[in-house]
Amino acid sequence: MEKIRVELAERSYNVFIGSSILEGIGEALRHLGLSPRLALISNPTVFSLYGEPVSSSIKRAGFDLITVIIPDGEEYKNLAQVQHIYNELLGHKLDRSSALIALGGGVIGDITGFAASTYMRGIQCLQLPTTLLSQVDSAVGGKTGVNHELGKNMIGTFWQPGLVWIDVDTLNTLPKRELLAGLAEVIKCGVIYDKGLFDFLEANIEDILSLGNKALSHIIKRSCEIKAEVVSKDERESGLRAILNYGHTIGHAIETATGYTRFLHGEAVSIGMHLEAKLSQALNLIEREEVLKIKAIIDAYGLPSALPAGIDVDYMLSSMQLDKKSVAGELRFILPQKIGSVIIHKGINAEFIRQALYLER
Amino acid sequence: MEKIRVELAERSYNVFIGSSILEGIGEALRHLGLSPRLALISNPTVFSLYGEPVSSSIKRAGFDLITVIIPDGEEYKNLAQVQHIYNELLGHKLDRSSALIALGGGVIGDITGFAASTYMRGIQCLQLPTTLLSQVDSAVGGKTGVNHELGKNMIGTFWQPGLVWIDVDTLNTLPKRELLAGLAEVIKCGVIYDKGLFDFLEANIEDILSLGNKALSHIIKRSCEIKAEVVSKDERESGLRAILNYGHTIGHAIETATGYTRFLHGEAVSIGMHLEAKLSQALNLIEREEVLKIKAIIDAYGLPSALPAGIDVDYMLSSMQLDKKSVAGELRFILPQKIGSVIIHKGINAEFIRQALYLER
Repeated sequence: MEKIRVELAERSYNVFIGSSILEGIGEALRHLGLSPRLALISNPTVFSLYGEPVSSSIKRAGFDLITVIIPDGEEYKNLAQVQHIYNELLGHKLDRSSALIALGGGVIGDITGFAASTYMRGIQCLQLPTTLLSQVDSAVGGKTGVNHELGKNMIGTFWQPGLVWIDVDTLNTLPKRELLAGLAEVIKCGVIYDKGLFDFLEANIEDILSLGNKALSHIIKRSCEIKAEVVSKDERESGLRAILNYGHTIGHAIETATGYTRFLHGEAVSIGMHLEAKLSQALNLIEREEVLKIKAIIDAYGLPSALPAGIDVDYMLSSMQLDKKSVAGELRFILPQKIGSVIIHKGINAEFIRQALYLER
Repeated sequence: MEKIRVELAERSYNVFIGSSILEGIGEALRHLGLSPRLALISNPTVFSLYGEPVSSSIKRAGFDLITVIIPDGEEYKNLAQVQHIYNELLGHKLDRSSALIALGGGVIGDITGFAASTYMRGIQCLQLPTTLLSQVDSAVGGKTGVNHELGKNMIGTFWQPGLVWIDVDTLNTLPKRELLAGLAEVIKCGVIYDKGLFDFLEANIEDILSLGNKALSHIIKRSCEIKAEVVSKDERESGLRAILNYGHTIGHAIETATGYTRFLHGEAVSIGMHLEAKLSQALNLIEREEVLKIKAIIDAYGLPSALPAGIDVDYMLSSMQLDKKSVAGELRFILPQKIGSVIIHKGINAEFIRQALYLER
């Protein structure tokens, strides 16, 4: 089992990564000073696969456990489901020393984190991510959120988990398409921060795609380490942390313009990474060869890199201006300079972006 | 104008108290590094009285301002109204550097603070409290919240304001009953922390009840100073801050048992302070004479001190056990030892409380 420490003063916590460690969770919880009553939040798919071993382990460790099931899918990451969680927690008298345990992917992790941060002014949240995307990205770093019809993750908090517990074996049951989408965030980590990780991704395509335990553990660990380092330096995204948004400005706009149904998050981010690299090239900030390498690895992992035909560019642009990352309508982009290094670029002319996107369409 | 500093490291802020200072708010906002677009949250009653001067002042200082009106009353301190605020903020494209300005009493302050803490993972919140209760208590200290049908303030966050701006002249338009209810929290400050303030309240009853500017400013300033000192030492209520809950364990239970309609918060707290003092006496923790002094001052300010006949004691007790202040069903009380000093008492037998409440009924 590997351990990574996220250093955030009194909010520091550990990320554990290992194989077949799900049933060890109960024992791990005993050291966190919790009330006897906990709640497990999951969705029907994940709960049917891993609910039993996780629940048994927690109960064996001496806890009372209630279970709250949220329907499967990004469209349920909303305030109505948060209200459902509140009702269950209050109905079962969970108190300020209780904790919520998120068992699932990014949707479950984000909504559970949000509910925990707002229940009785904040209770502990523990993350058991079961998708690659959540293991390498959303479970670490404390961003919580739910969607609003006018934009993704518009409602949310910063609320660090008390523990992140990653069992790589859960990836065996993950649909291939979701695995690939998770790899987009690993590619992102390579481009923004670590040429070594990028090279590893290039050199181990087959191993990773066939779920080789060692290769998977390595890329998950490295992604978590990068995230932990960035978040430790800038928890609330006042500066450095913004680099994690590479590919996301355009990626979010694609998700919004396509109603969150056509692309998985990682797929939209893949397109975003490629287009933002091309934007960087158009601004003479990166060599063409580097952009081609970024496109090549996106393609190699079977992820999309081109803007879909017929997408509404004007709608994309206005949703970018409403994005949390923009301030006073000014667009901000994370632009690569070479593999392993990015800059935060402000004040690009909106018309310039619009033209660039039209050309891509 | 008086200034009190709430010391909380990077979340420190100032509380200003003065007469006829409402129109100075725009100028004060210019030093906070905000986006040009702000939102004023108020209710119809307060907005009709003070909306115009406040809005003009803010606009004169160069800000765009949208206004969101919440219906008047505790029953609107709920998630549906928070959702209404989110809709307006997103519809008008407020961004991460925007701020919400709460103009009103405790309901407006609490709901605005909660919306600010969860909009785009947290934006600034500025408090312009217009009731005595909010000026001496809820506007300072960063507790935000909305009610759930199973309990008051069950959903909320800790989110410190960026500025608190108190114009004592707004008390001239406050209904007498609300003024008295606000005085309950001032009495509380005296009992838990400051015999000098308690003595001042005893010696200046007429002056305070006739809204003498000097006497009012003094008790508001002293209450804010006490709150600032306690909150600086224990922001998230892991210890000392709990003393501010004196009178509130029983007070909240009375509010819940009477559906939040019969008593104002301060009235319920007044009854709670008296009964908790008697509880302290029953446990031999305080002299009878001190309890009588507490009852006498509650009576002198026209506040209720007796449990209403016919109240459902069992319902009160079970709501106390669900209260945020109880952990694993264990009741916690703040019990006075003498005027100016309290202790946090855990583990009182529930049956003992029930008997005591039955005797009071």
